[in-house]
Amino acid sequence: MVSEKMYALGSTKSCIRELFEYGLRQAELIGKENVFDYSLGNPSIPSPEPVNEAFAGIIREKGAVATHGYTPAAGAMEARRAVADELNERYRAGIRPENLFLTCGAAPALISVIRALAVGQAEIMAIAPYFPEYRPFVEMNGCKFVTVPADTEHFQIRLDALETCLTRHTQAVIINSPNNPSGVVYERETLERLAALLKKKSAEYGHPIYILADEPYRELVYDGAEAVFVPAVYPNTIVCYSWSKSLSLPGERIGYVCVPDCAEDSRVVFSAVAGAARTLGHVCAPSLQQFVVARCCGLRPDLQAYDKNRTLLYDSLRSYGYACTKPNGAFYMFVKAPGGDSRAFSERAKAKNLLVVPGNDFGCPEFFRISTCVSYEMIVRSLPVFRELIAG
Amino acid sequence: MVSEKMYALGSTKSCIRELFEYGLRQAELIGKENVFDYSLGNPSIPSPEPVNEAFAGIIREKGAVATHGYTPAAGAMEARRAVADELNERYRAGIRPENLFLTCGAAPALISVIRALAVGQAEIMAIAPYFPEYRPFVEMNGCKFVTVPADTEHFQIRLDALETCLTRHTQAVIINSPNNPSGVVYERETLERLAALLKKKSAEYGHPIYILADEPYRELVYDGAEAVFVPAVYPNTIVCYSWSKSLSLPGERIGYVCVPDCAEDSRVVFSAVAGAARTLGHVCAPSLQQFVVARCCGLRPDLQAYDKNRTLLYDSLRSYGYACTKPNGAFYMFVKAPGGDSRAFSERAKAKNLLVVPGNDFGCPEFFRISTCVSYEMIVRSLPVFRELIAG
Repeated sequence: MVSEKMYALGSTKSCIRELFEYGLRQAELIGKENVFDYSLGNPSIPSPEPVNEAFAGIIREKGAVATHGYTPAAGAMEARRAVADELNERYRAGIRPENLFLTCGAAPALISVIRALAVGQAEIMAIAPYFPEYRPFVEMNGCKFVTVPADTEHFQIRLDALETCLTRHTQAVIINSPNNPSGVVYERETLERLAALLKKKSAEYGHPIYILADEPYRELVYDGAEAVFVPAVYPNTIVCYSWSKSLSLPGERIGYVCVPDCAEDSRVVFSAVAGAARTLGHVCAPSLQQFVVARCCGLRPDLQAYDKNRTLLYDSLRSYGYACTKPNGAFYMFVKAPGGDSRAFSERAKAKNLLVVPGNDFGCPEFFRISTCVSYEMIVRSLPVFRELIAG
Repeated sequence: MVSEKMYALGSTKSCIRELFEYGLRQAELIGKENVFDYSLGNPSIPSPEPVNEAFAGIIREKGAVATHGYTPAAGAMEARRAVADELNERYRAGIRPENLFLTCGAAPALISVIRALAVGQAEIMAIAPYFPEYRPFVEMNGCKFVTVPADTEHFQIRLDALETCLTRHTQAVIINSPNNPSGVVYERETLERLAALLKKKSAEYGHPIYILADEPYRELVYDGAEAVFVPAVYPNTIVCYSWSKSLSLPGERIGYVCVPDCAEDSRVVFSAVAGAARTLGHVCAPSLQQFVVARCCGLRPDLQAYDKNRTLLYDSLRSYGYACTKPNGAFYMFVKAPGGDSRAFSERAKAKNLLVVPGNDFGCPEFFRISTCVSYEMIVRSLPVFRELIAG
């Protein structure tokens, strides 16, 4: 008398979580320094100091009742205004506070949009490699999940393949750039070509196909890469964001949905997102976190540590013979598994206490993911293992 | 191409919210001191001081990375253990940390349970007067919403009426004691009789009918009333809780689902709740709030102010001729509308800048709700208006 689908989702751990927990157990057995855990994408650099000062200072300054009280469902106006101002300053984005709906992180933001667009036989598309949770988010909220095969050479978008996946039921295409797991940033040209295609097909089908831009890694770019503000390229874009990575606050659950005025039926979509959030039990985003964001949303993470890790890992793995597209964003690398079977490779690596995530659940079974938000010392210690594994 | 149901939910404001916003506009026009706003249930007493100290101290003591990082989906073990210990100390409840799943407040807790139980033609029952959001929570998450008429004399449970509403599709009965909107606490005898009925019907139908105990007001009781720990009376109880009221943290979004070992299929239900939460975009409850609860879940609110308000309002309204069951919990009173039409009464009151919520959405159109979590001075100023309104 219990939902089998919900039970299945709750009783099976993700592959990432399984590996992580295996790593913790191994660390107890053989010592933390002998386990090389690249499984989780948990930010390893601390929040900028003003963020922690804000957490303490806000309660003192605003008082407990004002800090901890309910805010409007869409968020406190001071937080929404600060976020809009910051977006406008960087992108001349034309965002008003009324376009922003603050959420408990990017996950419920995405699901609220998916539920808002769940009409008839709605299809939501994702492009491999993609974040594995997209599948339950879409399938358990009234839509069909359609995936586009990966461009395994550059990790941009195979537009020919994407075009064949579009139907008149396609309501949205999720894009995630900088990408988890590839670490690659979509180039402006990629996005312009995607925009042109979606514009053409929207006209053909007689309704907008939205881009759902999932952007928790927007601020994590390297080598001068540009994380394009997608609504500027394709107006029918709904942005989902989180401060999990940019302010190193993954546990604190604060993010937003942005439905810009340039999107078709903007106000209708916004209301539907608000209604969908209500059916998910959204009351408001955590209020203290909202006020922290009001003060700190313009701060940027100190990416030096991630960049240093990225460079060491990329250069080393390439020199050993691994094939990998150089990541210029996020904190991941997506490496071709020697032999072509990432599950088998992950098992071989696990036997040497090196934990890497097979790419199957990301839609790319021949690649494995490593998180580069780890300690530099661990990377150094792990390199001989990577070398051994490709040597045979 | 947008979900009409979600749009409808997002574009219509609740009656409570409408009144509250009307009150804010009126306050600007005629002065805050001339508006008597009894619409919202927003705690008006501040959090206990150690709660605010914990918010600041935890980051300093644990460090930013440990405080703000992801916790397991069900919550940080130290928080779950503290909550279990506290329940066991008060109720000898036999709760283990593994029975607790921390959530972003009571709303997603309830919905996770509803989704976990959404099989076939599942029905979820609520007893009038009930919290209006139960309806969308149930109807938008795969179940039928069934309501039991109110016991308008004592605001206990009309078991004869409840029995006729049970079917073999009934998966759960939501109870909310201390009750919003009546302010009444279900007596032990009421719960024992409900337990006996549900036990009998569960046996008849061959599957458990769960009680879903929604208990955000558990700690808010007066006159020595007892808020019974429901699983001790009826083992097939799933508890949903929030610290919104007990620690005056409504905006901070921290609560839990508790599936005790005594509940049938306890571990299966727990896993299904975890799976359902995942489909709602739950990653973890806000981590800082989890650690605050780990330290502060044993603290109790200082209820003197609410009690003083309750006494003044109850005594005054009764002396003017209003009929009302004396509330012994929460921070609401549910008063019979003179004339019997609470919408009409609410309109008449509104014309005198007194804002009370008609009971229609609570399933009791002949009663109106007033929140007693307001300032004492406002009550004093408003009393002549209450007197006028019943005089005619």
